[in-house]
Amino acid sequence: MIVDVRWGHLTREEIKKALIRCPVVVLPVGSCEQHGPHLPVDTDTFDAERASIEAAEQISPPPLVLPSVPYGVSEHHMSFGGTITLKPETLLNVVVDVVESVVRQGAKAVVIVNGHGGNSAVLAIAAQKIRHNLGVACLIEDCGAVAEDARKKLFPQPYDVHAGEFETSVVLATRPDAVRNDAIPAACDVRRPFNAPPEVTVGFRMEDMTRTGVLGDATKADAERGRQFWQAEVEGLKKLLEDIIAEIRR
Amino acid sequence: MIVDVRWGHLTREEIKKALIRCPVVVLPVGSCEQHGPHLPVDTDTFDAERASIEAAEQISPPPLVLPSVPYGVSEHHMSFGGTITLKPETLLNVVVDVVESVVRQGAKAVVIVNGHGGNSAVLAIAAQKIRHNLGVACLIEDCGAVAEDARKKLFPQPYDVHAGEFETSVVLATRPDAVRNDAIPAACDVRRPFNAPPEVTVGFRMEDMTRTGVLGDATKADAERGRQFWQAEVEGLKKLLEDIIAEIRR
Amino acid sequence: MIVDVRWGHLTREEIKKALIRCPVVVLPVGSCEQHGPHLPVDTDTFDAERASIEAAEQISPPPLVLPSVPYGVSEHHMSFGGTITLKPETLLNVVVDVVESVVRQGAKAVVIVNGHGGNSAVLAIAAQKIRHNLGVACLIEDCGAVAEDARKKLFPQPYDVHAGEFETSVVLATRPDAVRNDAIPAACDVRRPFNAPPEVTVGFRMEDMTRTGVLGDATKADAERGRQFWQAEVEGLKKLLEDIIAEIRR
Amino acid sequence: MIVDVRWGHLTREEIKKALIRCPVVVLPVGSCEQHGPHLPVDTDTFDAERASIEAAEQISPPPLVLPSVPYGVSEHHMSFGGTITLKPETLLNVVVDVVESVVRQGAKAVVIVNGHGGNSAVLAIAAQKIRHNLGVACLIEDCGAVAEDARKKLFPQPYDVHAGEFETSVVLATRPDAVRNDAIPAACDVRRPFNAPPEVTVGFRMEDMTRTGVLGDATKADAERGRQFWQAEVEGLKKLLEDIIAEIRR
Amino acid sequence: MIVDVRWGHLTREEIKKALIRCPVVVLPVGSCEQHGPHLPVDTDTFDAERASIEAAEQISPPPLVLPSVPYGVSEHHMSFGGTITLKPETLLNVVVDVVESVVRQGAKAVVIVNGHGGNSAVLAIAAQKIRHNLGVACLIEDCGAVAEDARKKLFPQPYDVHAGEFETSVVLATRPDAVRNDAIPAACDVRRPFNAPPEVTVGFRMEDMTRTGVLGDATKADAERGRQFWQAEVEGLKKLLEDIIAEIRR
Amino acid sequence: MIVDVRWGHLTREEIKKALIRCPVVVLPVGSCEQHGPHLPVDTDTFDAERASIEAAEQISPPPLVLPSVPYGVSEHHMSFGGTITLKPETLLNVVVDVVESVVRQGAKAVVIVNGHGGNSAVLAIAAQKIRHNLGVACLIEDCGAVAEDARKKLFPQPYDVHAGEFETSVVLATRPDAVRNDAIPAACDVRRPFNAPPEVTVGFRMEDMTRTGVLGDATKADAERGRQFWQAEVEGLKKLLEDIIAEIRR
Repeated sequence: MIVDVRWGHLTREEIKKALIRCPVVVLPVGSCEQHGPHLPVDTDTFDAERASIEAAEQISPPPLVLPSVPYGVSEHHMSFGGTITLKPETLLNVVVDVVESVVRQGAKAVVIVNGHGGNSAVLAIAAQKIRHNLGVACLIEDCGAVAEDARKKLFPQPYDVHAGEFETSVVLATRPDAVRNDAIPAACDVRRPFNAPPEVTVGFRMEDMTRTGVLGDATKADAERGRQFWQAEVEGLKKLLEDIIAEIRR
Repeated sequence: MIVDVRWGHLTREEIKKALIRCPVVVLPVGSCEQHGPHLPVDTDTFDAERASIEAAEQISPPPLVLPSVPYGVSEHHMSFGGTITLKPETLLNVVVDVVESVVRQGAKAVVIVNGHGGNSAVLAIAAQKIRHNLGVACLIEDCGAVAEDARKKLFPQPYDVHAGEFETSVVLATRPDAVRNDAIPAACDVRRPFNAPPEVTVGFRMEDMTRTGVLGDATKADAERGRQFWQAEVEGLKKLLEDIIAEIRR
Repeated sequence: MIVDVRWGHLTREEIKKALIRCPVVVLPVGSCEQHGPHLPVDTDTFDAERASIEAAEQISPPPLVLPSVPYGVSEHHMSFGGTITLKPETLLNVVVDVVESVVRQGAKAVVIVNGHGGNSAVLAIAAQKIRHNLGVACLIEDCGAVAEDARKKLFPQPYDVHAGEFETSVVLATRPDAVRNDAIPAACDVRRPFNAPPEVTVGFRMEDMTRTGVLGDATKADAERGRQFWQAEVEGLKKLLEDIIAEIRR
Repeated sequence: MIVDVRWGHLTREEIKKALIRCPVVVLPVGSCEQHGPHLPVDTDTFDAERASIEAAEQISPPPLVLPSVPYGVSEHHMSFGGTITLKPETLLNVVVDVVESVVRQGAKAVVIVNGHGGNSAVLAIAAQKIRHNLGVACLIEDCGAVAEDARKKLFPQPYDVHAGEFETSVVLATRPDAVRNDAIPAACDVRRPFNAPPEVTVGFRMEDMTRTGVLGDATKADAERGRQFWQAEVEGLKKLLEDIIAEIRR
Repeated sequence: MIVDVRWGHLTREEIKKALIRCPVVVLPVGSCEQHGPHLPVDTDTFDAERASIEAAEQISPPPLVLPSVPYGVSEHHMSFGGTITLKPETLLNVVVDVVESVVRQGAKAVVIVNGHGGNSAVLAIAAQKIRHNLGVACLIEDCGAVAEDARKKLFPQPYDVHAGEFETSVVLATRPDAVRNDAIPAACDVRRPFNAPPEVTVGFRMEDMTRTGVLGDATKADAERGRQFWQAEVEGLKKLLEDIIAEIRR
Repeated sequence: MIVDVRWGHLTREEIKKALIRCPVVVLPVGSCEQHGPHLPVDTDTFDAERASIEAAEQISPPPLVLPSVPYGVSEHHMSFGGTITLKPETLLNVVVDVVESVVRQGAKAVVIVNGHGGNSAVLAIAAQKIRHNLGVACLIEDCGAVAEDARKKLFPQPYDVHAGEFETSVVLATRPDAVRNDAIPAACDVRRPFNAPPEVTVGFRMEDMTRTGVLGDATKADAERGRQFWQAEVEGLKKLLEDIIAEIRR
């Protein structure tokens, strides 16, 4: 019996058996970028990986969770320090290479769990390439989209999207020691880049939007609401995985 | 006085003067892809270009409208015929090359008017590259986003997104002769690809969603509602252009 | 019955039928570049597209004319303003992607009608790739080559190749309103770049050859001779299309 | 005071301070590939990361250890299952992008700790690019090279290089629970690919060398010798880091 | 005093001095492709290199001749055997890398002596890139263009362009032992690919034109006329080099 | 009977017959880089080509020797002058394109004889690509590896690797006139780049190691020992070729 859903922790034989039992694979994609003065730079990777594992562990036989891609597209955060960025083309190639490898071993669907908005466009392109060139299903759980309802209810403030009330609450819930409580910044004004309306996509650096590198009021963070969101996220991801497993099996 | 806002119709000297008066440039990006049995394959290009020109003409001094990119990323439509697709990398390079050329001539902002959802991810990446590597503002009016409210009110049906009630209504309003009335298809069932929930991004071919290549009920199309949307779209784009022109001038 | 030869104006079903009747497709490739102070920057695109359509319309069943590629390789014109350039690799990919799309739909031959000398080398490479990788015929009508005899007779001056007597005459014939008569420049001296003899290919910027960005004496332009050339060009292209259609059918 | 040397666990401000105190950064690069029927596929990543952290922790102020690259170039292992491979170009771009990001933040030297021989050539090219294009020092601790003497003494058998006596011993020492003791394979014959002499580089698949995917006799694995090697490896890496830190400071 | 004009035969110090005395460099580009049953596959390389050296040796101080690029774009010859081809992108990069290296050492002009028509389009693109990105002059002596008049007079037959009367005559003049006299093929019919008129560029394989892989009547080859052409070619190249040296010095 | 082993000197028919008799091909790869003030810059190319030819000539039927790649990856030598460098990607593509061409003609194994250490990593990647994508055997005789024992005995000094005692001795043996005796430099101190230990791969420029661009004491060069090494090298290469020919034939 498999007690560990992490692909990386298994042997080749265990992986082969697991793929036969469940031909769906999960790929967490994170980032290594500044999350204000109070959160670790691997926050997105940690959350994507953690949610993937918790969801997969509740399914039997479980889908395997691939090693997380720990770097994303974060050029817009570079000026705040602590940030590593891949070029969009590089991340695209990493994801396509990895998925091609699992498809060659029999995977029939890949669920990418993305923890960082800067990766979304690249992953959308990857999903199309994977569908067209490799033939399999590729779903992207993009930045907690499966728990969007819970999020809107628990964290209704607009622009609460980077190291603010929402994200800090989640870290308080999942990795409480990781929050530097004495460094939580006061909320700062947020501008839309170039004053563009919210429905318009706009090229931006973080400094076009925020003086502190934070979007949202981290001082209002709250572990309990973080926990509630996390539960919804893991639950949503679990359901997504169950549904695609059932779909593939039909 | 410039009487034509189309960059392509002007001489080099007229363009130089126009860029000094208004350093914002509009780039329509379309597609050449099947739009059911009843709409021309250049629908997305026509709409993006037409809206760009109508909005620009109402502004004085006007922003110039570049020649439209007539091909987009449409691999998912290929099996229905009539479709031409660029690889995502190709479209990305086209857009970046074009914008780099106008930035070298003094443009301070570029508004991309995108008529095709399959281009959105590529254009989002382009916008980031343009902001980071060329330094200027890049805004994307993505598939009528500036008139999203009007659209939801006028065309509330879900999945009405490709050659259906909404798009056919718009063509009836802007190019009535282009609609083949006797070929309008009956509505067909729409599936989400792999049964994925709507909030999840998913790699897909059109045939994963629809038997007819159409999403939405084109038999319900209505020129008057199309006209109302078009007015909102042009008005919204005009306001977007005015705002970015003002922002650049500050 | 098809009354419009433009691929973009047709529906997918009309295109499918047209390709069965005539599996030859025409792709106009232009440029967006300075044409002196008196001609619009889309001159090359307009001419390539116009000639393609006029020739195709005289053939029954007609070959379809794809949407024009409105940008070419024009780095050498950049310093004069008004110019947009693609990198050579970008144009190559655009052409190959487009042709691959039509070949996947059954096209057996592609005739590229090129309006701009700066594209010629890229298109020659594209033609070889298309022949080798896609298997179909690819012919390039390069800058009026099929009417070269008429041109030499009507416009015998050397170096009359960019916005000069020849090109201005053609625009006077095909789009008279497009010529800014009061801006037609006096003829200027033309140098070969680096004094190289004409039979030697040489890397150049336009400013290596001309102070005005014009090659040829536009003050001598004449609508009637423009019309005669145009007739020869359309006639030559029509014959080229008829011949390749016949060849493919054999 | 920094108590954690892992870049990913720190905040942007902590990273900035750490880089000022010690402008040397460590990048572990691993693989996700079959390691016989008895070792987990993330063995190379685990070892590279673990050694990096242990060595860095012994230095004050410590160099930071970047998040590990969890995928390498492993095409030659694909047929045995469980393996994920990047194309060589992809890994090259990942490493160069990551290092460029840290150099933009002030890093003066990067030590890459590589756990997988299949990455060596790519990393050698990366090191040259980094030296030439970014100007900083780039050192590669390649597969335990700093403890080569200890290795030769402790594990003198030839071809003991993949999931055999040596590697299994190391895992027994560092992650004893990770070894599937009941799946340790008997030693198998090893062939040089195409019978080439050992001093000749040769393109190969693992199946050109071994029937089992293992090189070396894992049944002879021994935790104590693994521990001795590990100590030498960490000690060697620590010395390497101290030396380059001193060199940079001169 | 330099007695050898070959860059490769000199030491770094000799090259530095030679570049100061004459900042023009010659790069021969050839091919490795079938030349019928009677000529060696390196014919184009030999001729380009030989002409370069003979011309350079007559100039004082001489321009240096770089090592020849021995492979070209020859996909269209592949089916006849004996042929090696580079992809067009590969040859482009080779030429640009080489020229960039010499420009970094002070070269002010590069004359590419091309021996193979299949390379012409790639070299034309290279020349533009070199002019725009590196700033120096780049001239291409393309397949004997400087002696075109002599050629037309000495070898007036049409389509005499590959291993036929003309090329065989030249080899008889420059490397008589290289001609396999007993294998000279009878002339064969030549078709234009797809029956296209000569003024139209067309994608082709050699087998679209000729059954034997030869274009021209090699049985009519004549060493004396070969010698006369060769003299004209070397003389023309010498003059080209002298002119560009003078131009650079002005 | 073939009297010349050089692919380039043969006709297509001779090559076809030779490949049938011996489906192994040799590709020499050199460099064009500074070799101190006393050796020609084509030293690596000359040696790789010469050894290849001498070894092949002793085998019957002989493997063919392809035209040498005369440029390698030499960025680290650029500051000393006389050097031409390819980007690593360019050399990789050249080698893969060439090998793909010979594999399409029936070659079953390729032996790359590499004369320059800067090429080694690129060639190792090429060998893997060739094995995986083309299926054939690819062996690399890397910088005299087959005669490593002889070298260590004849030239035991450490760091004697570039234009020093060893390389100068070889040139004295194979091309005595090529050595500029009056320019042989005195030995200079050699540093490891960044003081890194020898077992660590390190990104470097030659000036990180040596003031003179020479590694080793060229004043101690000796034609007789050069000759002995050369004999061992040719002998070793001959044996390598014989063995792979035998292996392929099994």
